[in-house]
Amino acid sequence: MRMPTFAIGVDLGGTNLRIAAVDDSGTLLEKTTTGTQVARGRDFVIDEMCQAIRATVTKFSSSTLAGIGIGVPGIIDMATGMLRESPNLPGWHNYPVRDEIERRLGAKVILENDANSAALGEKWLGAGRDYDDMLMLTLGTGVGGGLVLQGRIWRGTRGMAGEPGHITVEPEGPPCPCGNRGCLEQLASATAVIRMAREAIEKGASPALKRAYHEDAEFGANVVYQMAVQGEAAAKDIFRRVGWALGIGLADLINLLNLPMYVIGGGVSNAWDAFLPAMMEEIKKRSFVYRATAPEDSSPGRKTIITRALLGGEAGLFGAARLPMLVTEAAIHEGVRKRA
Amino acid sequence: MRMPTFAIGVDLGGTNLRIAAVDDSGTLLEKTTTGTQVARGRDFVIDEMCQAIRATVTKFSSSTLAGIGIGVPGIIDMATGMLRESPNLPGWHNYPVRDEIERRLGAKVILENDANSAALGEKWLGAGRDYDDMLMLTLGTGVGGGLVLQGRIWRGTRGMAGEPGHITVEPEGPPCPCGNRGCLEQLASATAVIRMAREAIEKGASPALKRAYHEDAEFGANVVYQMAVQGEAAAKDIFRRVGWALGIGLADLINLLNLPMYVIGGGVSNAWDAFLPAMMEEIKKRSFVYRATAPEDSSPGRKTIITRALLGGEAGLFGAARLPMLVTEAAIHEGVRKRA
Repeated sequence: MRMPTFAIGVDLGGTNLRIAAVDDSGTLLEKTTTGTQVARGRDFVIDEMCQAIRATVTKFSSSTLAGIGIGVPGIIDMATGMLRESPNLPGWHNYPVRDEIERRLGAKVILENDANSAALGEKWLGAGRDYDDMLMLTLGTGVGGGLVLQGRIWRGTRGMAGEPGHITVEPEGPPCPCGNRGCLEQLASATAVIRMAREAIEKGASPALKRAYHEDAEFGANVVYQMAVQGEAAAKDIFRRVGWALGIGLADLINLLNLPMYVIGGGVSNAWDAFLPAMMEEIKKRSFVYRATAPEDSSPGRKTIITRALLGGEAGLFGAARLPMLVTEAAIHEGVRKRA
Repeated sequence: MRMPTFAIGVDLGGTNLRIAAVDDSGTLLEKTTTGTQVARGRDFVIDEMCQAIRATVTKFSSSTLAGIGIGVPGIIDMATGMLRESPNLPGWHNYPVRDEIERRLGAKVILENDANSAALGEKWLGAGRDYDDMLMLTLGTGVGGGLVLQGRIWRGTRGMAGEPGHITVEPEGPPCPCGNRGCLEQLASATAVIRMAREAIEKGASPALKRAYHEDAEFGANVVYQMAVQGEAAAKDIFRRVGWALGIGLADLINLLNLPMYVIGGGVSNAWDAFLPAMMEEIKKRSFVYRATAPEDSSPGRKTIITRALLGGEAGLFGAARLPMLVTEAAIHEGVRKRA
């Protein structure tokens, strides 16, 4: 009998640190969640993480460890294993994250951007499980993305690919911290929804939004969504604008890549029914490739499907665990070819 | 000694039909050019083309024929070998082009969109010859594109990928025949340059352009470019706008794909120095991925290079000849794996 194989997946977020043991069929064996104590510094966070990883590995020592994958918010230089930018992990800029982890664990680890990990998770076990090629948009604080081609993350030359959140939707639109204006992220993230709500309040367009903004301590994109559901005109307009922006960005992606599946996840995707009509209207108008492959008049396997993510917040964790498994599979494949 | 191998490449344009024999090292063995007699109907054109292909194959009968590749303007359904849309070959819509050619020749052929063929040609023997991943924009009557990933054309699920000419640059911009507004094609093609010249004339912005428009029987994008070179303000503005649009589109592509090379070809690329400054200004402003990989401060092999095409009008012909060679290489590769 083959010895069971498992991998460790880590989701190192700015708020939570989650560690999972996942077997190679995708079954979650164990999961631990702790708060990320970012304030105590990067060495402290990494020490804690490595201890927790060791404890989990020890617990499953009767199985074969395929490896350790870690999803990190920010842009990773794949060659050096350094974080280039990471707004949610202040002070980690140009810190050799991968080397520090490997030194403590005495084992190789694979780092991946968190949005790429989420895309890989959805591809492995979620909405994209029947597709080798897919793109995932994660509508969270920002808009992240992951492009999966032939079952693997498309990283580009420098590991910086997969940033559809910075497609220009409106050339003279709201400024983005990335330096551009009118990025998709500035119109379809939770941050964008809150900014648009504030703009509506400042214009006096919605007393109801104003009340919620001042009275609800947890005012956020979800509150704006609830108000849209209740028929509040300004809140509905905001999600129409989210849908408009998503529609333009997706039409670009469909015309360029002609993938069979586009998956939308992240917190703002909970407002799916509020932005869907405007999003689909723009896609149909702006993408002749979509019109030629729309699900309603295409043969199976040749459709363009646009759908919600299925794994919620777990996608990144499963995707991180998948990373070392893909490396192992590639090595076996390569070995077979070399012996040929 | 190994028997020399060659392939037939065909560029079936709306104006010219070109047929080449190219050996597997990229040497042009022979080239014939005739006018495409579109008015005499598709069967006539295909008969003529097949006769010319047979004559060329016979001439090199001492070598091994790798196959026949044909570049066609328009969107090809790769599964059925039909043309879905082809503005330059009126009446060919939903005509089983591939089957008709194969029936006459008694041999398999590979059809490819002409912009994809051009990208493959530049990848094989032109600007992209040292890169496995690249994207080519062809600025002609329209704006075509070809995305090459790991040495092969990325076709997408239905062979419709690689349409960066229909990225939205300006959401409420000029209408495009594809159904969208403000497509890159509406701002950076030869057709767009002429439209913008006409708009400038109508606004009374340029007596010099007006004179050229009425007096020059061959008024076209190249005439506007010559006037820009001579310092005519309205003409310079037009190419600044071309550069602005190209910059937005390329920034999207760089942020999404992080490829090492983007190649710009087609007739309008002759105006390179007129649109380059505005294009680079937008790219630097709008793409943080570009800024992180700009040639001036990146290590070799990790740069983002944006450059002119090298093969001119021959790119599509060489790319078409390359198509069957890639299939042969893939089959050999597959055979090795199967015997393993």
